[in-house]
Amino acid sequence: MIDKNPNFTPQEYQARIAKTRAAMDAAQLNAIFVTDPSNMSWLTGYDGWSFYVHQGVVLTMTGEPIWWGRAMDAVGAGRTVFMKGGDTIRGYDDTFVQNPDKHPMQELAALLAEHGLDHARIGVEMDNYYYTAAAHATLTTNLPNATFKDATGLVNWQRAVKSSQEIVYMRRAARIVEAMHARILELVEPGLRKNDLIAEIYATGMRGADGHWGDYPAIVPMAPSGMDATAPHLTWDGRPMVKGEATFFEIAGAHKRYQCPQSRTVFLGNVPPKYQQAEAAVLDAIDAGLEQAKPGNQAQDIANAFNAALNKAGFEKDGRCGYAIGISYPPDWGERTISFRAGDTTVLQAGMTFHFMPALWLDDGGLEITEPILITPTGHECLCNTPRSLWVKP
Amino acid sequence: MIDKNPNFTPQEYQARIAKTRAAMDAAQLNAIFVTDPSNMSWLTGYDGWSFYVHQGVVLTMTGEPIWWGRAMDAVGAGRTVFMKGGDTIRGYDDTFVQNPDKHPMQELAALLAEHGLDHARIGVEMDNYYYTAAAHATLTTNLPNATFKDATGLVNWQRAVKSSQEIVYMRRAARIVEAMHARILELVEPGLRKNDLIAEIYATGMRGADGHWGDYPAIVPMAPSGMDATAPHLTWDGRPMVKGEATFFEIAGAHKRYQCPQSRTVFLGNVPPKYQQAEAAVLDAIDAGLEQAKPGNQAQDIANAFNAALNKAGFEKDGRCGYAIGISYPPDWGERTISFRAGDTTVLQAGMTFHFMPALWLDDGGLEITEPILITPTGHECLCNTPRSLWVKP
Repeated sequence: MIDKNPNFTPQEYQARIAKTRAAMDAAQLNAIFVTDPSNMSWLTGYDGWSFYVHQGVVLTMTGEPIWWGRAMDAVGAGRTVFMKGGDTIRGYDDTFVQNPDKHPMQELAALLAEHGLDHARIGVEMDNYYYTAAAHATLTTNLPNATFKDATGLVNWQRAVKSSQEIVYMRRAARIVEAMHARILELVEPGLRKNDLIAEIYATGMRGADGHWGDYPAIVPMAPSGMDATAPHLTWDGRPMVKGEATFFEIAGAHKRYQCPQSRTVFLGNVPPKYQQAEAAVLDAIDAGLEQAKPGNQAQDIANAFNAALNKAGFEKDGRCGYAIGISYPPDWGERTISFRAGDTTVLQAGMTFHFMPALWLDDGGLEITEPILITPTGHECLCNTPRSLWVKP
Repeated sequence: MIDKNPNFTPQEYQARIAKTRAAMDAAQLNAIFVTDPSNMSWLTGYDGWSFYVHQGVVLTMTGEPIWWGRAMDAVGAGRTVFMKGGDTIRGYDDTFVQNPDKHPMQELAALLAEHGLDHARIGVEMDNYYYTAAAHATLTTNLPNATFKDATGLVNWQRAVKSSQEIVYMRRAARIVEAMHARILELVEPGLRKNDLIAEIYATGMRGADGHWGDYPAIVPMAPSGMDATAPHLTWDGRPMVKGEATFFEIAGAHKRYQCPQSRTVFLGNVPPKYQQAEAAVLDAIDAGLEQAKPGNQAQDIANAFNAALNKAGFEKDGRCGYAIGISYPPDWGERTISFRAGDTTVLQAGMTFHFMPALWLDDGGLEITEPILITPTGHECLCNTPRSLWVKP
């Protein structure tokens, strides 16, 4: 959240808008309507937990973007967006909120028509969480002469290469997640209630690091133990931690909405040979993957090298092993563009940031040892200095 | 999150399914596909932070519900849902995840056809966050002979009256949010960095109360100060708290995904007359609203009484002043059914739970003093004992 010192200069927002317009031009679009909160924020600076109602940013080929949302959130827009113009923030009446008798997209249609877009080619984020089937149906019905095109990911792709200021924020988030993991290692022991450990993880994350405050991660801590850790996305409960179980901690540090996720796994007690083998295999495979993390290579090169090393050691991983990261809002801290998996031929460039996420879910537990990375002009840099191993506590 | 002791008995899940089927029958539906994570959980017990990929629950008029989602999350479904049958959990291949070349809904269409639903009348939650425009387009294209009907809110409405076990969990969440507010009042003072206070709010919420663990609230703390508090949904940053400003804390306690939100406002220093007047007006208006909170009255009766009292004191509130609460996942802790506002004629019944949310956003700050309530057979009960006033620290 925000003071009157915006997180980026107006020039940076203008550069982002110019990049986005080039992509709009290539897609032959006159306008886009952006509902992804991370895209809204990246284009305008808007910040607020208001994405549970319909809202978005309209960008045409000229002029400033328009923030559009619930009238009471227009005040928050005024506190956070870089635009100064009076017509750049537009609110709709509260009676449209969660009311089956009418839909906010009726209002948006009127706004677009007012801007001469009723016959335009308009890009919408068809597969974004906050662009529902009903939103699309209402908008298209109310603008029958406009042409709607799928622009899912159009803005997200412009975010792939980070600016130097964005990298500053990513590094601060990296310091925070390091501190969170250090706190876990310090406290974890048999008998500790999981939720009490989660309390400490949250508190450390919010306090921040190096004097930089902690923002909320776009996903809550995932911290399953034992058999629950055979599943990737369970959270926590109040049971005490027990000897003989592995627990993975998939968490993120965050600063000014920039996310730095990292996972580590703790084993309480004597590590069974299978976990030792899995650890060795994953560490080797991470090295193999990281060796491919350099400009000019493709995203899939990292996955292929990682998987080959893992398979050689007798392990297998089904899912993708990494994805782009940056600014984000719930429910996902990924950018939903580049994935480390076979078939993703995206060429890596300096300034891209990823969560290299080589998790293994075994028959009787899980092992996650992951690295957030920055592609540099000559290779890559791991953003965190968290010790890279399976952590063991007696 | 979950152990092998589910949060509710199989009988309770069956009763919920029976209620839902009656509503499906009334809407002439053969099946529903439910993507709202709170509806998925309420119908099956499923719990996991996996709603950032396409998933849902299929319910027909006979047999058990089917959990459908990403293959790696099928493991988590196996750990959490009440169903025991082998065909009740269905996972799709990871290559469908965030891949512009194919869409998971192709797989869902095949699953529905396999169950003889390719000519059925199927209800979908058109206006749910997790049912995107692309999801609907793909599903309808791949099932051209099925008829799709909007079933937004169909399951949510079945959740309005809570079971006794649900009320047990709501009360535990109420104890937790009381503890969080007590901690705020204890610590808040000029010079305290906002994020350090947020750290303590989170830690208190996760530790829980009365031995019951804290789960994650469906919204992060909203805690703006001064002019930022003229907007309702800003979160926090690292600036220190200062004398002469009001800060509202809109937070929730949570237990087993049940949410108990409550807001309080703290003024640091001498309270200006305007805030004293606003406090008096809001407290009176709360009393007037609560007087109408009883079975047989309508939802709007509370809003009308509240607004009349507020207007009499010279204040005005634009938005709704309350909404139904219960089990929830991000991005919203409301149930998105009943609202306290003019025109909502829903008849109140014993067992309904609401966040009575009479917030005032003033020219130079905000005032939120709110009450989570339970409708009882004879009237209502405030779920929390948090002292009801504007809190002042010198």
